[in-house]
Amino acid sequence: MISNQDQYYMGLALKEAQKAYAKDEVPVGCVIVQNNQVIARAHNMRQLHHDVLGHAEIRAIKKATKKLNSWILEDATLYVTLEPCLMCAGAILQARIKRVVFATLEPKFGAIQSVVQIFNDEYHFNHHVIVDSGVCQEEASTLLKTYFQNKRHKR
Amino acid sequence: MISNQDQYYMGLALKEAQKAYAKDEVPVGCVIVQNNQVIARAHNMRQLHHDVLGHAEIRAIKKATKKLNSWILEDATLYVTLEPCLMCAGAILQARIKRVVFATLEPKFGAIQSVVQIFNDEYHFNHHVIVDSGVCQEEASTLLKTYFQNKRHKR
Repeated sequence: MISNQDQYYMGLALKEAQKAYAKDEVPVGCVIVQNNQVIARAHNMRQLHHDVLGHAEIRAIKKATKKLNSWILEDATLYVTLEPCLMCAGAILQARIKRVVFATLEPKFGAIQSVVQIFNDEYHFNHHVIVDSGVCQEEASTLLKTYFQNKRHKR
Repeated sequence: MISNQDQYYMGLALKEAQKAYAKDEVPVGCVIVQNNQVIARAHNMRQLHHDVLGHAEIRAIKKATKKLNSWILEDATLYVTLEPCLMCAGAILQARIKRVVFATLEPKFGAIQSVVQIFNDEYHFNHHVIVDSGVCQEEASTLLKTYFQNKRHKR
C-alpha cells in the first residue's frame, strides 16, 4: 500500500537523483527510512568514483549500517528512484530491509520485476522483502530520459 | 575446464579464508586474477566491520577496480572459497568479470547453483559469466564446518 509518506520520501530520493544529474552521473537517488526518520541518503556515484559499488542503494545501505552500527536494517524502508539491479537487491536481502519502494522500472537490469523477480516466493532466501513501485514514476523516468538524451547529443 | 592454475589460485583464496578464520569471521576468501597476476586478495570481514558489504568477493572487487582505476574487470577470473550470494553475484555481473571459480556450495544463500542459477541463460543480463566449481572443495568445506562447530561449542 502506497501512502502520502511514501510520496514524501520518494521526493527526497528524487532530490538525491538530481544531485547525481548535476554531477553528470546516471540520476538515481535513494533514502532509507526507519521509525519515520531518514537514516541515510545517497545518490549514484559510479563513474566519478570508478566504483562498481557506487550505486545509490549500496551507498545508502553502507551509510545506514554505519549510522546504526549494525548490518541488520530489519525495520527500514528503502526508497529508490529506479528498480534495483541484482547486486543492490542482494544487498537489500543481506541487510534484511523490510520494504523497498521504487519509482520506475529498469528493463535491462532490474532484478525485482524486469529481468528476474528475485523477491518472489519461488526463491527461498532467508528473508522476505515487501515491494511497492510506481511512486513518483513520471518524475523519476523523465529525469533519466533527459539525462540520456543529453548524453546522446553530447556525443 | 579446471586447470592446475585454478588449484593454485584457489589455494591463495583458501589462505585468505584462513585469515578470516583467525579473526573469528566466517572463513571465506577470494582472489581476483588477470593476465596471470593476482590483482586483489580479500577475506570476509562482515562482523568486525559491521558491514553488509564485507563479503570477500565485494572487498576483492573493490580493491581490483581501485587498482585498475576502472569498474570493468572483463578479463578477470574471480576465485572464491564459497558459492557467491545474490549481492556478490550481482557485483560480479556489474564488474563484468569473465569467469568465476568457487570451491564449495552455499545451500541457503548461493545464487549461482543453490537457491537460484542466476548466471544461466534464462536470465538475460548484459553479460555472461563462465562458472566452474569444486576446486579445493574439501578444504574449503572443512574450514567452514570447523568454524561453525567451534562457534556452537562456544555458546
